[in-house]
Amino acid sequence: MPLGEKYAGDKSKSRYCGVETDFDDDIPNLLSFNLHGGFDFLLATLMDPDYRPSLLDDDKRRSRALPFAGSDLVMSPSQWSSHVVGKISAWIDMDSEDETIREDSEIALKQEIAWASHLSLQACLLPTPKGTSCANYARCLNQILQNLGSMQLWLRIPLDKSEDDEKEASPNHLREGQTDSWELWNSFRLLCEHHNQLSVSLDILSSLPSPSSVARWFGEPVRAAIINTNSFLTNARGYPCLSKRHQRLTTAFFNHSIQIVISGQPVHNVPSPSGLTSENQVEGGWRHPLRPYLDYLAHLYKTMDPLPEQERFELGYRDYLQSPLQPLMDNLEAQTYEIFEKDTVKYSQYQRAVAKALMDRVPDENASSVITVLMVVGAGRGPLVRASLQAAEETDRKLKIYAVEKNPNAVVTLHSLVKLEGWEEIVTIVSSDMRNWEAPEKADILVSELLGSFGDNELSPECLDGALRFLKEDGISIPSSYTSFVQPVTACKLYNDIKSHNDLVHFETAYVVKLHRVARLAPNQPVFTFTHPEYSTKKSNQRYKKLRFDIQSDTGSTLVHGFAGYFDATLYKDVHLGIEPSTATPNMFSWFPIFFPLRTPICVQPGTPLEVHFWRCCGSTKVWYEWCVTSPAASPVHNTNGRSYWVGL
Amino acid sequence: MPLGEKYAGDKSKSRYCGVETDFDDDIPNLLSFNLHGGFDFLLATLMDPDYRPSLLDDDKRRSRALPFAGSDLVMSPSQWSSHVVGKISAWIDMDSEDETIREDSEIALKQEIAWASHLSLQACLLPTPKGTSCANYARCLNQILQNLGSMQLWLRIPLDKSEDDEKEASPNHLREGQTDSWELWNSFRLLCEHHNQLSVSLDILSSLPSPSSVARWFGEPVRAAIINTNSFLTNARGYPCLSKRHQRLTTAFFNHSIQIVISGQPVHNVPSPSGLTSENQVEGGWRHPLRPYLDYLAHLYKTMDPLPEQERFELGYRDYLQSPLQPLMDNLEAQTYEIFEKDTVKYSQYQRAVAKALMDRVPDENASSVITVLMVVGAGRGPLVRASLQAAEETDRKLKIYAVEKNPNAVVTLHSLVKLEGWEEIVTIVSSDMRNWEAPEKADILVSELLGSFGDNELSPECLDGALRFLKEDGISIPSSYTSFVQPVTACKLYNDIKSHNDLVHFETAYVVKLHRVARLAPNQPVFTFTHPEYSTKKSNQRYKKLRFDIQSDTGSTLVHGFAGYFDATLYKDVHLGIEPSTATPNMFSWFPIFFPLRTPICVQPGTPLEVHFWRCCGSTKVWYEWCVTSPAASPVHNTNGRSYWVGL
Repeated sequence: MPLGEKYAGDKSKSRYCGVETDFDDDIPNLLSFNLHGGFDFLLATLMDPDYRPSLLDDDKRRSRALPFAGSDLVMSPSQWSSHVVGKISAWIDMDSEDETIREDSEIALKQEIAWASHLSLQACLLPTPKGTSCANYARCLNQILQNLGSMQLWLRIPLDKSEDDEKEASPNHLREGQTDSWELWNSFRLLCEHHNQLSVSLDILSSLPSPSSVARWFGEPVRAAIINTNSFLTNARGYPCLSKRHQRLTTAFFNHSIQIVISGQPVHNVPSPSGLTSENQVEGGWRHPLRPYLDYLAHLYKTMDPLPEQERFELGYRDYLQSPLQPLMDNLEAQTYEIFEKDTVKYSQYQRAVAKALMDRVPDENASSVITVLMVVGAGRGPLVRASLQAAEETDRKLKIYAVEKNPNAVVTLHSLVKLEGWEEIVTIVSSDMRNWEAPEKADILVSELLGSFGDNELSPECLDGALRFLKEDGISIPSSYTSFVQPVTACKLYNDIKSHNDLVHFETAYVVKLHRVARLAPNQPVFTFTHPEYSTKKSNQRYKKLRFDIQSDTGSTLVHGFAGYFDATLYKDVHLGIEPSTATPNMFSWFPIFFPLRTPICVQPGTPLEVHFWRCCGSTKVWYEWCVTSPAASPVHNTNGRSYWVGL
Repeated sequence: MPLGEKYAGDKSKSRYCGVETDFDDDIPNLLSFNLHGGFDFLLATLMDPDYRPSLLDDDKRRSRALPFAGSDLVMSPSQWSSHVVGKISAWIDMDSEDETIREDSEIALKQEIAWASHLSLQACLLPTPKGTSCANYARCLNQILQNLGSMQLWLRIPLDKSEDDEKEASPNHLREGQTDSWELWNSFRLLCEHHNQLSVSLDILSSLPSPSSVARWFGEPVRAAIINTNSFLTNARGYPCLSKRHQRLTTAFFNHSIQIVISGQPVHNVPSPSGLTSENQVEGGWRHPLRPYLDYLAHLYKTMDPLPEQERFELGYRDYLQSPLQPLMDNLEAQTYEIFEKDTVKYSQYQRAVAKALMDRVPDENASSVITVLMVVGAGRGPLVRASLQAAEETDRKLKIYAVEKNPNAVVTLHSLVKLEGWEEIVTIVSSDMRNWEAPEKADILVSELLGSFGDNELSPECLDGALRFLKEDGISIPSSYTSFVQPVTACKLYNDIKSHNDLVHFETAYVVKLHRVARLAPNQPVFTFTHPEYSTKKSNQRYKKLRFDIQSDTGSTLVHGFAGYFDATLYKDVHLGIEPSTATPNMFSWFPIFFPLRTPICVQPGTPLEVHFWRCCGSTKVWYEWCVTSPAASPVHNTNGRSYWVGL
């Protein structure tokens, strides 16, 4: 029985709640007990915990079935797969000093996973590595992962990091007495090369690490969070509840499609509706002993803030990599124009900027006599023409507009629009690339929307350089400047999607992507700024920026898969437009962030700066970025000579 | 005029000595001056040092030739390429804070390298990076390297590392005030992805870093060593000479085909042969002012220890990667047998072992009555049969020999040999795989030579397990045990050769290779040991070993490209055979070391342990190794399931 429905058609996996059970060889009964109790699936031990391969002699091994809990006769494979996550024996210790334990562990692990595959389980829960070393465990699991079908393996990891001051003194991150469980996970998945069937199940303890430490996990493939009953507090009426921090964390799990599993014995004396305590009777019948915990989670789920409409619209784009548009080299399609024209917030910002510029340029007393020449360069199907006209109307200024557009298909639409709206007296349509157009007069105001997710990545600087010839010396460019920003992120999902292409090109491409399953590791920093108009004779659109990020020390170690990029543009004076998270224009949907991947993820230890370099390089036919890391260790320079990714001029 | 000839036909590049010169636009004269003075090539500045692109206005830039020293008319391209290494302007500073200097640097660097390519120079010397940061320099050079033809670029790096105790406290290896020039080089080449046209020219200063720090460079692509005249001492007669450490270093350069270049002004008042000082006159004429330095180097070259014959024979195999033999799965060819049979040292060790075993097994009083049954398993073309018979003769013991061989082609040779030598009474030839043979009686002594470079890698354990059935319970196996060893190495050349295949398989294969251009970073440690006979019921030939290497702290940071592997075998009691360097059997040539590469080289900072794991895994049809690193950072597990490299059963 799902926890609830956040909105009509809610399909989030996190609606389903599981329960961890002990070994029971009457598995059909165990399942029906818990399904009736309100849970959606079991985390069930598959094999008798007393089993050890080395205790069997050869004869027994040949004649006896393995001591599994139930078979595919007591429940059908479809029941198994929809309601059971297999729990691999907890005694398994692949990195024990004792060779017999190691060998028993390897045999049992392989037997249990083979059995789970036989039952078509969707996932198995793997026991937490016992010590600080996990190489043999990872080696064995990596062997299994190579031939696993579609089953997921959830490695059980406690959400645990004690704040250890001595830590920074030791650069060896697999030292004895390691206390940051994320490092254990990190070693494990590096050994297994980020295998996409290896994921995490977090054990939520009663105390939580620092928020920045916890935040790392949202860039990782966490599939489940197991909350023990003793992590719950008790409210005034005796019911279980979670601390504020646990609540926020649980809500974040819900938002990231992470399934909750309740574990442990009931430890709250919840009054039954009839006034008797500790009874599993409710009006009309029986109640599951863990039901109060489940009810509390359902309550949390149902009272979450509803997802804003725009976010709901963008659900399907989350963490989905797209190649950036090449609007200069390619001609956009009608439907692309249509989608972007719907972004009313963007155009109202332009309208505000044009209005302010008109007021500054033409004093009230000249409003009726002076005609301002405004050129929209890259007019597309006309939304900026409309915004400019509305600004003129609003401020009572007179305009003469040139609408310059290089896409002949869009020019067709522009002509219809001008006729339809009766703008023929005011608007002149020019079918030309702004870089070549010989303008009949100079402009007071140049309006353009040539910005990409990273500001200059759709070649706004090069286009506006071309248009500078026909801007008056005291003329205004809207936008007047724009700056790109980056920040390091953990983004396991994106990394794996890129890796699946198995080539260099995809690792040296920047992607437009609605970032969701990412951990942002440090605040954004500005990268490149362009200002218009720019009359300097030595001007160049090449740029080089060296950045140093200091990751908050209570975060612990982190793995950087790449850099999230954004922009902010000053349209005119205080009117800005942008997606840089701390200053983003609300309710705008024209731009998702950009993502620059790293070919090899880089592990950053606490106290070590992350030093990053970005270049904007210009050739005769293309513009491209190169990027690299030089601290804590040097990476290759990515995208040398724009070999993998470039924007055509 | 080469420095000398170490042996007949000496073709080492290091016979040629160069001289660094200042800018001179009469380059033909400069060249002939130095060639007559005894040098073989110039390190010559290509461009007027006053040139700065930003000082030229556009008109000048278009109408004026660049101020290069000479052209391809004053000297032919073949003269340029055989006698000149181009020195790129020393003022170039790609990572300056000053944008104009950066831009000038990039333009000049590209112009000079293009010019050097035009002249078909074999190499250019790049100026030392100015600060601790080199990312922009590396980015630009990396762009150049992508389209460079065949020219080498030698990055000039001072051989410099001050012993800084504070160092270990800072895990950031590109920190301010960096003092280990190796780290600068390391960042540079990581940024340029180990490009094989990027190499090093070391500036040798008057003081040298610790031996282990200097040793790192012998795993790097060092092409030249520039010795300044002020690094020379003065001997009793006033002549220049080098300190003992400098001498040893120079000799090591000679041995590694690293060319010496003399630089600087003459600073020694060398008496001229006529008794006058400071004159450039010799009997019969003129003497180059740097000639005493050159003469000293020629003296060093000529008085080097001559290369032992075996080393000379192996010159062609140095750093050449070979796939290990698969003698079990494949049948060896006659010429392979012939080569290995020439290793007389190996067979005399076997003869000693058999002799000792015979003496132990048969007391003198029974020598004439007892016949010892000796089986040679894997007899090949018979060398161990011969060695055993010689041992019997030497000790006056009686033998009955079974020569078991699975290669039917070798069996043909065996039959001829037995007939030729008249051994028919003593030797029984068995054409069978020892794992299947039904022996008519049991053996006292089992002799085999199934060892690979890594001991067990040619499946000696599996073969001898198969032969155990026909060894008497108190029987002797020769060898009685063997152990493999590994040590971490820097091996840039091997890494690049593997990388050139551009696939995963080659990075997950172990190679047999005569290691030469490697830096051994820590002493060997034992990995796997096998003992024969082994009667334990639970025996398995799977192995797992975790190793921890502590790199000597005065070494500084190092880059580990992989692991060199060796073996040592105990044939019988104190008679051993092996290639582990500290105990290697002298003058044996049957085995080169083995090399296990790492897919991504791992940088190890001082004070950080290197933790490595090796597995020997056994399947039903094959045996393979897996390996990984877990500290300082986790690598992928290499060769999972033997997907890239395995030995067939």
